[in-house]
Amino acid sequence: MAEIVTFGEVLAEFMATERNQSLGTAGTFAGPFPGGAPAIFIDQAARLGSTAAMVSCVGDDAFGRMLVARLARDAVDVSAIHTRAEHTTASAFVTYYDDGSRDFIFNIANGACAAIEPNQFDDVLDGAKLFHIAGTSLFSGHMIDLARRVSERVKAAGGRVSFDPNVRKETLARPGARQALTDLVSRTDILLPSDSELNVLLDIDDDEAAVERALELGVAEIAWKHGAKGCRYYDDQGRQAFESFQVSEVDPTGAGDSFGATFCTLRTQGMAASQALVYANAAGASAVSRRGAMEGTSTRAELEAFIDGHGASVTP
Amino acid sequence: MAEIVTFGEVLAEFMATERNQSLGTAGTFAGPFPGGAPAIFIDQAARLGSTAAMVSCVGDDAFGRMLVARLARDAVDVSAIHTRAEHTTASAFVTYYDDGSRDFIFNIANGACAAIEPNQFDDVLDGAKLFHIAGTSLFSGHMIDLARRVSERVKAAGGRVSFDPNVRKETLARPGARQALTDLVSRTDILLPSDSELNVLLDIDDDEAAVERALELGVAEIAWKHGAKGCRYYDDQGRQAFESFQVSEVDPTGAGDSFGATFCTLRTQGMAASQALVYANAAGASAVSRRGAMEGTSTRAELEAFIDGHGASVTP
Repeated sequence: MAEIVTFGEVLAEFMATERNQSLGTAGTFAGPFPGGAPAIFIDQAARLGSTAAMVSCVGDDAFGRMLVARLARDAVDVSAIHTRAEHTTASAFVTYYDDGSRDFIFNIANGACAAIEPNQFDDVLDGAKLFHIAGTSLFSGHMIDLARRVSERVKAAGGRVSFDPNVRKETLARPGARQALTDLVSRTDILLPSDSELNVLLDIDDDEAAVERALELGVAEIAWKHGAKGCRYYDDQGRQAFESFQVSEVDPTGAGDSFGATFCTLRTQGMAASQALVYANAAGASAVSRRGAMEGTSTRAELEAFIDGHGASVTP
Repeated sequence: MAEIVTFGEVLAEFMATERNQSLGTAGTFAGPFPGGAPAIFIDQAARLGSTAAMVSCVGDDAFGRMLVARLARDAVDVSAIHTRAEHTTASAFVTYYDDGSRDFIFNIANGACAAIEPNQFDDVLDGAKLFHIAGTSLFSGHMIDLARRVSERVKAAGGRVSFDPNVRKETLARPGARQALTDLVSRTDILLPSDSELNVLLDIDDDEAAVERALELGVAEIAWKHGAKGCRYYDDQGRQAFESFQVSEVDPTGAGDSFGATFCTLRTQGMAASQALVYANAAGASAVSRRGAMEGTSTRAELEAFIDGHGASVTP
């Protein structure tokens, strides 16, 4: 039993230590750092005091043990992270370029996390108030099917569904992918797109038209992330815009996940959206200023100190 | 068409930069270095002037492109290394401890190289004089089956088979594994065990009894590797022992593969076993003195300079 539940990849992340380092040339990498979009999400949720459970699989290896220990340390319920001896824990390599772009190599779709079975959800899903779907986890028909089935189950029991599409044009090129993701949007209560993802996903260039279509599909709230440029929030009451906190960027990986988790967790705890978005912005800004995707998660007290330190207020 | 053909993993290797670094704690890794036992074997074979082909698969990623380019640079025929867009190139992490032990995490059985198809051999196998099997590549029933079928095909066409068992007790614990590996021994002409591998594989504690059993199974030559302690050679004429060249160890990974490839390649080129073993020892010693598994491969001129520099001779 947990208030907030997610599923998908927990992974060991390796970061090139030099800017502009090619992944195809010998260099130096720092790691393993704990990562994986849903893992960061659930870590952030637990640090904000909600009961939070992760459904995943790891290999019987040092990466898997490190990841489970790290999530458990932050009070994530790891009972539904199973060890699959015949698989290796997922991993990822990332390098950053001066122009802000990144290159990745992923061992995810072929990693242990691809072996999640439906019955792993049984022990943690009762009473779940929020089920979160990270688009990065939808790397196979099996994972999309799990997302769909678990969403239905949670909604039938009165819970809500959040979805961070993390969609790229290449994802949608897979046969049936657009229909499957649009189906997920229609089951989503809180949608968390970044930049042009909502346009790409719904194939609608105009932002306001894309929002309108998402609300028509049944989405209740949209927190649209634009990184350092702030975020916009939409619900049936209309639109609000929020500026980001300005910080120096150390490592952007995981910032969107910390933002989304903070917003969804505080909403699930009953906070008003306009207040939750200030915390979410603080969580995103804290995350980019620390190296390591999961090193940027924060407690509520830390977020309040951050907001205070930046001359802002959480009481509008 | 190639004189020497092998198959299995080509992989991107990452090495912990500090001794005693745990794979489960954030640290620093150097890489990607080209690696994989059969890839090192075939690189060494090509550098000794034989036509040499590798059958494998890589992902559509920077690791795969680096590996193919590196093998091609050393004149390996890479036409049978196919790109599988839905997979990631294999990779491995290794850390070294002061007591000489190593820890590994492998993405091999779940990497692109696991997707080799039988027809990939068609273009390179005609006229093959030697087919090499690295035990590290026998990570699935599919790979064992490929090894068996290709061995039969090469032997039926008059070629020979070499086999480096690289077997561990855990490998043999898999159902049917001992029988499958013993079957491969019975199709092997040149067997290249290390340390206690032959004992483990044949379940015979006494070294000489294990050798006798291997010869009974049909093996023609055994080059038994003992690292810095030298090697022993057995054929139907009896036994010879050879000392290693003494060097400071920088990176032992790949040394056994360079040794085996040098021995098998020079034997295939017609050199007497006693002379080929001097070159093989030089290749092994050169490999341990350089960091990076594939950085230790050598040309014949380099090996002769090494042997000469150590006051030895290649003409007994």
